Order: sequence, then structure tokens, then C-alpha cells
Amino acid sequence: MDEADLEATYRAYLEVLNDRRFDELTAYVHDDITYNDEPITRSQYQRNRADEVDTIPDLAFQIGTLVVQGNHVACRLWFECTPVRAFLGFEPTGATISFAEHVFYEFDGGRIKQVRSLLDRAAVASQLAQPR
Amino acid sequence: MDEADLEATYRAYLEVLNDRRFDELTAYVHDDITYNDEPITRSQYQRNRADEVDTIPDLAFQIGTLVVQGNHVACRLWFECTPVRAFLGFEPTGATISFAEHVFYEFDGGRIKQVRSLLDRAAVASQLAQPR
Repeated sequence: MDEADLEATYRAYLEVLNDRRFDELTAYVHDDITYNDEPITRSQYQRNRADEVDTIPDLAFQIGTLVVQGNHVACRLWFECTPVRAFLGFEPTGATISFAEHVFYEFDGGRIKQVRSLLDRAAVASQLAQPR
Repeated sequence: MDEADLEATYRAYLEVLNDRRFDELTAYVHDDITYNDEPITRSQYQRNRADEVDTIPDLAFQIGTLVVQGNHVACRLWFECTPVRAFLGFEPTGATISFAEHVFYEFDGGRIKQVRSLLDRAAVASQLAQPR
């Protein structure tokens, strides 16, 4: 898979997430992956994505900067969304918040094998309420 | 500048930082850049790097994952270092800590024009002492 194909695959993966078609993640994510160096199954990954949407019903993955080389995708994602449950331990206020995520993916055979993500927790904390 | 040259330039930039040759940053950083969307001058950028080394004398930039495409460099940096002053608001303990930074650079004419960085603040917080 060349870089143009990998970029197209990654963009399609984000559309699957944005459309809540979590069953289709089979085509984009290996059975067993590592997420921030922790091994998890794709089933758990699917549950985590579904749980995120319960917490943030209007969650949408927007590409800020996308960098693709070899089997690697690096993306600065941008979120403008409205949590309705506690998110990262902070309580919702009803307000829409915005924050970045910087994530590195390693693909293998066109599917995600490894994810390493950092999210702007300080930005989230400053826009939500402190834990009760 | 092709991707191999950009990668070589970026690696040379990290060596300049690791060798504390901050005067040479002129060759790698534009006069005026944005850092996490804030405009700063190269002089300020150089002072910030020098201040970091005052806080963390053994600071060393290690490449974890490097992704280069077009004018963009994305890097997962890995640090194992020993703060001797307050770092991100947390007090040093004398212990060596480790943490990641996920950073996206935009180059223009072979020099850095924009930096967007997220650092694993939770990892840093868990390894240093709470603010006094």
C-alpha cells in the first residue's frame, strides 16, 4: 500500500468513526493492537469508541495536519464537541469545548497495529468543570 | 527540499539542541514562528530552549517515531531526564523521569515556521512532586 492509499484508508477510517459504523472497524484495525503501549483487542477498541460517543454524542474527528510516510500516519486531530458525561475526569458544563489530539499510528497490511496518542488534557480541563 | 533532505535537516536540528549549540538555531528556525499558535521570535525560542536546559540539565531529544511528508515533520520524541527545578509546575524529586512529546512542525524553505506540540503532562505529573 503506497502513501496515497494509506492516506485514503486513514481518511475512510475517520469517516467510519464519524458515522458510528463501529462494526466496520474490522477492516481498519487488527484483532490485537497496542494503544499507548497497552495491548487491547479490537473488540475493546470498538467498545471504547462507542463509550466515547456516549460521553460526547457530537464527537467528530477533524483532520488538522496529516503526515503519512511508509506504514506511519501522524495526525493532529481537532475536536469541537459537547461532553454530556464526565470526560477525562472533568464534569460537563453544557458548553462546547475544543482541543487537539496528536496521534501516531503504525499500520500493517493496511490496518492499524499500534496507536500512540496524546490529548491536550490541559485544554480540556480549562474548559470543563473540576471533578465533584 | 525533498523528504530525505528534510529528515536530515530535522535530525541535525535535534543534534543542535542536544549539543546546546543554540546560536546555530538560526539555520533551522525562521526569525518569526508560531508555537502552539502563539507568535514568537527565534530569539525567544532560543531563550526558551536555554531555560529548559537550566531546568533539566541532562535534557536529550530522542526520536521515537519520525514521519516526514512534504513540508511537514511529525515526531514522537522520548525523554529520560532529571529536572532540577520546577518543570510544568511540578517540583523535582531528584529522580529521573520519562515522558513523550508529540510534535508537528511545518517547514518553509528548510527552516521551521510552525510548531504544534503536546507533551504527556500526566506522565510528568505522576513522576514529580505536587506543587508546594
